[in-house]
Amino acid sequence: MDFKQYLKSRKNRVDAFLEKYLSSIDAPSRLLEAMRYSVFAGGKRLRPILAIAAYETCHTKTPCEDAAVVLGAAIEMIHTYSLIHDDLPAMDDDDFRRGSPTNHKVFGDAVAILAGDALLTQAFELLSDDKILRDIDPDRRGKIISEIARSSGSSGMVGGQVADILSEGRSIDRQALEDIHLRKTSALICASVVSGAILAGAAADKVSAMAVYGSRIGLAFQVADDILDVTGTQEELGKSTSDVTRDKKTYPALYGIENARRKAERLAAEAVGALDSFGEQAWGLRTIADYIVERKN
Amino acid sequence: MDFKQYLKSRKNRVDAFLEKYLSSIDAPSRLLEAMRYSVFAGGKRLRPILAIAAYETCHTKTPCEDAAVVLGAAIEMIHTYSLIHDDLPAMDDDDFRRGSPTNHKVFGDAVAILAGDALLTQAFELLSDDKILRDIDPDRRGKIISEIARSSGSSGMVGGQVADILSEGRSIDRQALEDIHLRKTSALICASVVSGAILAGAAADKVSAMAVYGSRIGLAFQVADDILDVTGTQEELGKSTSDVTRDKKTYPALYGIENARRKAERLAAEAVGALDSFGEQAWGLRTIADYIVERKN
Repeated sequence: MDFKQYLKSRKNRVDAFLEKYLSSIDAPSRLLEAMRYSVFAGGKRLRPILAIAAYETCHTKTPCEDAAVVLGAAIEMIHTYSLIHDDLPAMDDDDFRRGSPTNHKVFGDAVAILAGDALLTQAFELLSDDKILRDIDPDRRGKIISEIARSSGSSGMVGGQVADILSEGRSIDRQALEDIHLRKTSALICASVVSGAILAGAAADKVSAMAVYGSRIGLAFQVADDILDVTGTQEELGKSTSDVTRDKKTYPALYGIENARRKAERLAAEAVGALDSFGEQAWGLRTIADYIVERKN
Repeated sequence: MDFKQYLKSRKNRVDAFLEKYLSSIDAPSRLLEAMRYSVFAGGKRLRPILAIAAYETCHTKTPCEDAAVVLGAAIEMIHTYSLIHDDLPAMDDDDFRRGSPTNHKVFGDAVAILAGDALLTQAFELLSDDKILRDIDPDRRGKIISEIARSSGSSGMVGGQVADILSEGRSIDRQALEDIHLRKTSALICASVVSGAILAGAAADKVSAMAVYGSRIGLAFQVADDILDVTGTQEELGKSTSDVTRDKKTYPALYGIENARRKAERLAAEAVGALDSFGEQAWGLRTIADYIVERKN
């Protein structure tokens, strides 16, 4: 299958599910509008595609079963909530994301905070919904919820965001930078592939291999993002302020652009190396690793 | 057992668990400090006590097993996150809560938002932790997570908060006020007793009875809170601005104080009425219903 077609077909299934699911919620319309605004703001659906690709890699039956799409949608809601909160005036104070006004510019700070809260909670509501995920063993569902909560909470994504904020204006070393990004970006990306593998019923050693792949491409993604932040045009990135002007610690700032590029490539190679035992079935995950370091936005 | 002693012993167990659990987390120390600041800001632990009381009402073995305490702690973390976010300048802009500076006054808006996010996520991490809740059937754990997520998300607490914000400065009728408070306050209180009953393995009709009890005392609690907001002194309440001065819709404003009082008492009576089939074992829940309408802070 053509890779672009592969990405598009998975993205379309996630989008279709999110569309249907978010339409089914009984909540104040203004809140739903704010949630939908950011969920459908043009994301690439990288994390859901990774969850689905990991599922397909570990599962021997029909690829991309409905449950993997549901898992991906839940992860995307968490990712979206993190973007809404990151953009708030109290945090990064961004007016634009992906070329459009950020959530709080459209709905106000209060509704934006609550839309983020609602999306985070909705993800756990979805993952624990035994009508939607009725064919999934409850123990497996529990492990997935645990994996996703751990990666997105105080010791994962939120912890990384706090460490990132506290590092502004201070000098940090490479180890501290890597620790921030392992938590802030890599943890949820890693949880996406790991939970996809758990959903597919993968054995412990396969899940561990996925965790290695996930943490490496998670970091590679962040390094590539930092490089784009320096080299990309505003049009390509769709946002107005760069992390460099905001004195955030970035890989190019600490390593130089060329070394950062090499680091991203090395991480992607390590990620692909962790997939050896999966053979041909890991085609999707391998190609995504290359895509992550080569992308332009 | 003396009722005060009953409340205190349950509160102490929840506090002790929260203390131990929050000390065990690998996260940036500033984030943990902010999370702990609000978790240990002097809450009455009403929701955890309700969860434990419902568990004890439905369970025939040793009262207050560890799992009910864990469940209560998870619910308290969600309640605490909601208070931190409610107090933010973008929301209610409160400088004091329970007589102390609010989270964002101490840690800044960014860390306060993230401490809230972290506590919400931590609750689901805890509820899905099969080491801590290892003796609980995974299916039961899933149902509890579902119940709690549903009650605190877009169709529950967060939805109610949005509806409440949107109602400021507008005239609303009694039905709309009740809908706001059913979502904003009653939903999580109701989920506390319902999930306690589920944890105890209660049959469907018992869980339904608990839901009636929970929604009634949830509303009674809000009506009592509104009355206190008008009649209580700042010292008793520990907060600086009242909801009335902020033009929030309250029960006394729509019903008058005396009618609001009668409504709270009627709701508490309905709540107690729903407990008929539980007999003596529902002593705790019955006494809590009275306590809720009689409390002074």
